[in-house]
Amino acid sequence: MDDKRTLIDVGDGTSDEDDPIIPSKGTGHSSKPKEDAGLVGLNEEPATSSSGGAAQSISGIYHLIDNDQPPLLENNTPSIASEIQTNGNAGSTNRDINNSEPIFHLRSRTAAASTPNYESLDYEVCENTLFQDEQRKRLAEPFSLRKDVIRWIIFIQIGIITALIACSIDIIIEELSELKYEFLIKSVQKNVPLSDASDGDLVIPYLYWLLFSILPVAFGAAMVTYIEPITAGSGIPQVKSYLNGVKIPRIVRIKTLAVKAIGVITSVVGGLAGGKEGPMIHAGAVVAAGISQGKSTTFVKDFRVFKAFRDDHEKRDFVLGGGAAGVSAAFGAPIGGMLFSLEEAASFWNQNLIWRTLVASIISVFTLNIVLSAYHGLNDFTFTGLFNLGKFDQPLKFDYFELPIFMLLGVTGGLLGAAWNSLNTRINKFRKRFIPWKIGKVIEAVVVAIMGVTLACLMIYFINDCRPLGNDPTNHPVQLFCEDNEYNAVAALWFQTPEATVRSLFHDPPGSHKILTLTLFTVVYYVLSCATFGLNVSLGVFIPTALVGAAWGRLLAMVTFYLFPQAEFLHPGKYALIGAAANLGGVLRMTISLSVILMETTGVESSFFFPLIIALISAKWVGDYFNEGIYDTQIQENHVPLLTWEPLPQYKGLTAQKILSSPVVCIKLRDSAHYIYSMLKKCEHNGFPVVDDVQGDRRSEGRVCGIILRSQLIVILLKSLYVENKRFWLPDTSIQTFRDLYPRYPSIKSVRKLDEKINYTVDLSMFMNPSPVRVNPHDSVPRIFQIFRALGLRHLLVINSENRIAGIITRRDFIYK
Amino acid sequence: MDDKRTLIDVGDGTSDEDDPIIPSKGTGHSSKPKEDAGLVGLNEEPATSSSGGAAQSISGIYHLIDNDQPPLLENNTPSIASEIQTNGNAGSTNRDINNSEPIFHLRSRTAAASTPNYESLDYEVCENTLFQDEQRKRLAEPFSLRKDVIRWIIFIQIGIITALIACSIDIIIEELSELKYEFLIKSVQKNVPLSDASDGDLVIPYLYWLLFSILPVAFGAAMVTYIEPITAGSGIPQVKSYLNGVKIPRIVRIKTLAVKAIGVITSVVGGLAGGKEGPMIHAGAVVAAGISQGKSTTFVKDFRVFKAFRDDHEKRDFVLGGGAAGVSAAFGAPIGGMLFSLEEAASFWNQNLIWRTLVASIISVFTLNIVLSAYHGLNDFTFTGLFNLGKFDQPLKFDYFELPIFMLLGVTGGLLGAAWNSLNTRINKFRKRFIPWKIGKVIEAVVVAIMGVTLACLMIYFINDCRPLGNDPTNHPVQLFCEDNEYNAVAALWFQTPEATVRSLFHDPPGSHKILTLTLFTVVYYVLSCATFGLNVSLGVFIPTALVGAAWGRLLAMVTFYLFPQAEFLHPGKYALIGAAANLGGVLRMTISLSVILMETTGVESSFFFPLIIALISAKWVGDYFNEGIYDTQIQENHVPLLTWEPLPQYKGLTAQKILSSPVVCIKLRDSAHYIYSMLKKCEHNGFPVVDDVQGDRRSEGRVCGIILRSQLIVILLKSLYVENKRFWLPDTSIQTFRDLYPRYPSIKSVRKLDEKINYTVDLSMFMNPSPVRVNPHDSVPRIFQIFRALGLRHLLVINSENRIAGIITRRDFIYK
Repeated sequence: MDDKRTLIDVGDGTSDEDDPIIPSKGTGHSSKPKEDAGLVGLNEEPATSSSGGAAQSISGIYHLIDNDQPPLLENNTPSIASEIQTNGNAGSTNRDINNSEPIFHLRSRTAAASTPNYESLDYEVCENTLFQDEQRKRLAEPFSLRKDVIRWIIFIQIGIITALIACSIDIIIEELSELKYEFLIKSVQKNVPLSDASDGDLVIPYLYWLLFSILPVAFGAAMVTYIEPITAGSGIPQVKSYLNGVKIPRIVRIKTLAVKAIGVITSVVGGLAGGKEGPMIHAGAVVAAGISQGKSTTFVKDFRVFKAFRDDHEKRDFVLGGGAAGVSAAFGAPIGGMLFSLEEAASFWNQNLIWRTLVASIISVFTLNIVLSAYHGLNDFTFTGLFNLGKFDQPLKFDYFELPIFMLLGVTGGLLGAAWNSLNTRINKFRKRFIPWKIGKVIEAVVVAIMGVTLACLMIYFINDCRPLGNDPTNHPVQLFCEDNEYNAVAALWFQTPEATVRSLFHDPPGSHKILTLTLFTVVYYVLSCATFGLNVSLGVFIPTALVGAAWGRLLAMVTFYLFPQAEFLHPGKYALIGAAANLGGVLRMTISLSVILMETTGVESSFFFPLIIALISAKWVGDYFNEGIYDTQIQENHVPLLTWEPLPQYKGLTAQKILSSPVVCIKLRDSAHYIYSMLKKCEHNGFPVVDDVQGDRRSEGRVCGIILRSQLIVILLKSLYVENKRFWLPDTSIQTFRDLYPRYPSIKSVRKLDEKINYTVDLSMFMNPSPVRVNPHDSVPRIFQIFRALGLRHLLVINSENRIAGIITRRDFIYK
Repeated sequence: MDDKRTLIDVGDGTSDEDDPIIPSKGTGHSSKPKEDAGLVGLNEEPATSSSGGAAQSISGIYHLIDNDQPPLLENNTPSIASEIQTNGNAGSTNRDINNSEPIFHLRSRTAAASTPNYESLDYEVCENTLFQDEQRKRLAEPFSLRKDVIRWIIFIQIGIITALIACSIDIIIEELSELKYEFLIKSVQKNVPLSDASDGDLVIPYLYWLLFSILPVAFGAAMVTYIEPITAGSGIPQVKSYLNGVKIPRIVRIKTLAVKAIGVITSVVGGLAGGKEGPMIHAGAVVAAGISQGKSTTFVKDFRVFKAFRDDHEKRDFVLGGGAAGVSAAFGAPIGGMLFSLEEAASFWNQNLIWRTLVASIISVFTLNIVLSAYHGLNDFTFTGLFNLGKFDQPLKFDYFELPIFMLLGVTGGLLGAAWNSLNTRINKFRKRFIPWKIGKVIEAVVVAIMGVTLACLMIYFINDCRPLGNDPTNHPVQLFCEDNEYNAVAALWFQTPEATVRSLFHDPPGSHKILTLTLFTVVYYVLSCATFGLNVSLGVFIPTALVGAAWGRLLAMVTFYLFPQAEFLHPGKYALIGAAANLGGVLRMTISLSVILMETTGVESSFFFPLIIALISAKWVGDYFNEGIYDTQIQENHVPLLTWEPLPQYKGLTAQKILSSPVVCIKLRDSAHYIYSMLKKCEHNGFPVVDDVQGDRRSEGRVCGIILRSQLIVILLKSLYVENKRFWLPDTSIQTFRDLYPRYPSIKSVRKLDEKINYTVDLSMFMNPSPVRVNPHDSVPRIFQIFRALGLRHLLVINSENRIAGIITRRDFIYK
């Protein structure tokens, strides 16, 4: 055990000055993120050697509180003791069986230093005595039913309000874009009056265009950068992480929603290569969290309703519904919305929850439909504009021999998508490194906006692509450089929002574009979208990805048709759709919900599902060969400890022993307030096993009888729930006492010193969770991973055959690579 | 502990004669169902008193093997011992807190006597040493990938073959029905030649009709009754039970599939009020099980492929895909198919599994599409007949004020559905009681067929509903009793399959029927379908239910329009659709998948989802107030231990202690072959905790170190895997040794006596599952229910704080009411 002690001493060495910066392990407390922004994870530990020290650090993470505490696990079965010993020695025999390389690598110091220390959500319900008391009360009164009814009402509200927000964003963007492009077109017509002369002056429209791009983009970027940086990007990675069980600070606040809404409006109107769909999903999540909690941190307002829903478990369920409602509102795809939430989130398929989610989605679509119908002056609910990407007029047909072509398109999409992801990641890394200043981030966004406008202007100026008017698909044809009765097809592509361009590419009649136009457009947009995603603006990646895909899909069909004019099956709209699917599959890799969303947004027949799926699968598989989806890449870049669906391949063949953290800081069932206080001060863990049958102070040798959370301990200390003054607090204390402070429990620092109560005792039997999930040290990692994920756990206790603690496993233990 | 011992003695009393009929507990072994058909469950125990004895029997189920075994739990903590004591005493103090009535009731003796003793599936993967060895081998070779690829191939095959079977059934039914009704129409035209005379002779067509109904129905009913009774009904309840984790004997055999296919063809052609959809789903399940196992019991053929998939876990996953493919093929609804499987089955949302299921569904729809397109002579894949219930030509519109009407329709559907379920259950109970003979069941089916034909003939004869030809919706208009250029609308309703009638009701132009016609038709069909479901024929309930709903929905619209002729919104097809949704919601209550299936099969716009959902929800909630859905009712009638989604309300507030079974029969880690043999002979349990640290023979006081299944023990005895002859078998023994016998492990009776090896020892450490899930006695039932369901367990061990066994919980413990 010697080298383990050494390692722990090294760890203590870094925190000698009673510094809060103790090397801790993911579960580290950070309910007030700012306070422990300096807190660092395992990563910060002096990396003695990146290969040999890796396995060591795994077992040396949990710090002994008092140095008098004897070495752990003395009385364990020999096999376990020797295993731990093994863990401490690099290049052990056990590991040699599988692999000669070490399994765990430390992340690089630089990456970890700037990483916030994410916490997990407490999805597990703590069924302590207080909880059971409440349950019993509910069984007496018909409260149980009432809670169910309220839950339904909240879900319906989520659907409605999410849709209203989505509508507002949608309408404002549409109106402002209309104004902007109308003005630009007029300006073009004024300054380039000659229909056949190519010497017209495009400079003034160009400057106007620049102005109308720079102003909103700068405004949006500044808001995002200075007010709420978490709103940058689409928000889907953050929502996904939240639903996965990771607490992302400030992700579901109303302020975030406001900034996000304004941010997305300005960015889309500004003409950046992005869509409004991702932010709408984020908006749905915020709405859900806000409504269900009945209070707002931003407005420091507590409406005193829905108090029973104030815990992580309920909140996450509502956010699930909110995300689904957001997708539904964004795409008009209720089933797709439900599946999106499931794909990203649910580990346990709870029928009632899914049913509520589906209803929220449908109500969201319905509300959107009512509002948009009214807005467009229709008096029945047949606003087909809900089909975001345009419904195909006639059923799309295909032949057997096209299936390999679709597969080829899928492969192309996979390759392009993987390249896009890789390029985007590089750009973002570069960005992080060389643009650390806030003002720089705003300027960067403006530069990208200028780049976009300039490239578009150059394309319009140099490409001569005039089409006859008549079956023109645009609302505002620009005559620019064209004959009378003709319009400029290049300008038509650029003078609208990206979403409208996708629609054009899907539905424009054959022969609407030149091959050269589309080629250049594809290349320009590919690069532009890659440069845009990662800017400090609120923008989704779905629409630009679909746009690029639709462009090259249509392009390929046109080129092939040009080469083989007898190939009449090459309907350009169909190939644009397949191309969009392939590109989306290649970039996002969210196969299930994506396919359903595409089916729903384009209203294709169910017989066309098959080509779509072929393209999506090929794209996903090819893309997966090279890298991960863009959302997952972003999550990894942010070092969010996201649980995958399956345990990582490295973990196959390992047992719990190999990944557990030990020794574990334990608390006695009846422990002194002093011990708890000083322990909370000294370490940052969030869950502490409660033990019984303890010899003196050798707590970590006791028998496990439960687990208690840091937040619960802090409430106990704050409210002075001691044994000695039990008669004072007992009547008033209920589970509500703990819920009142949710979700922002105070830090231990805000608990005053206990001078006079220093010797008081805390009896945890009433507060602890008496049924923590426990596994054996020899259980395989895939198995415990399944348990961990299926039950949505935060802490998993590893016990030996005598029910004594052998270690603890948390989310991070499944993630280190 | 005295009364517990008494109870056990009473139990032993019934099995004194070394009879296999030992009172056992659901988990009882019955891998050869015929052999222990006489086996009875807890239900058979002499019900001392239905209220007081209930709690007793819960704790007295597991029998002590040797009478020398001392009373259990001597050295437990006092609280647990006293709790168990409490369990033994009726009307204990603990239960008084919640309720003065006892919580558990014995089922009636009569019901239980005829009930097969269902087993659970072993969904939990037994990660023993052999399994880990295999895993390690796989890590070495690229087998892991190969297994994944093979799994994909199997899922694709499932999709294709299910679709082909569905196609065949579909085409045969269509062709034969066409022949039948064409012949009948000709016969009508021949025998009732006068267009304006009502004195035509309908007797000869009536007799022909009878003949063409009786012959196929009698044939089908005879096949079902004499060859494979499990094929009766739709098969959905059985598939649902299987996916829930209950082993239904013979449910996934090829013989079952053959009988089912022929049964459904004959019944639908015979004109019974039923659909082919349910049987198609069952067919998908059989196909999946058959393909994935690579062997057939019916043909006694082992193809020696896919051996790695021979366990309950893999098989259930494949059956999930098969069910989804079946739904997709039946309805042309791939997403609905996927959701059906999820709604009915999945407890753990495994992304990869869902993805494979979706692909199987889509491939199934695609294959169906190809075949049906080819069959109908179309050369692209736009066979829109895939929309089983007909696609609406124009988007269905609705107004705000119609929403309450839809809700009213939903309530009506709920009431009618609940009444239907209740009536059907009564009819079936009556049937079970008064028609026990096989021939009686066949005759009954024939009688119902005759009844149907007679009622139809009477309606055609007495109702004069002639409509002008021209926009007639039928393929073969019958002129019967009508003027030239007119057709008989009543005959049009009856002279086709029920599915075609649903389509007519949805899509016939307004004014196609008389109010009187539809009223009578609704009443007749309501009664007919109620009498049909439960006959010994293979028929689904989906189509007749939709038909009744469509009929009364259309009827209501017509009546209202008749009363208020200015109400132009009353599109009869729209109301027929809402009526069908409401009636389906009222009868089936499968809300999620049902709504998606309806959306997909009718191709309505997403804006019309909302009315559908309103009707479905209202119907479900109203219906749920009265009784359960028809599938669940059937499952209950058959006493299948299906796990619900939430624990039953009776269990709220209880702890594990209150429902566990104890004492538990345990086995030592190294135990004698003799003990294992005699124990298997004496008791019928399927899982035995493996214990260590045992004082003498006091096995049930040992520390738990694993769990072993009955089937594994039998293999160990059969193959003589003893410690003493280890060197002989060790090299050849792998997890494959155990898989070879799957799924029909021999009974203990087929293991020969061990005379010479009687003192040999079995070391279970290699074979047992070392990581059984364990809970505490004081854990709440809702919590352990969640664990049980989320992890798909079969046995849940309850241990005390010293890791010694306190009891065992199985599926049945969550189900007694």
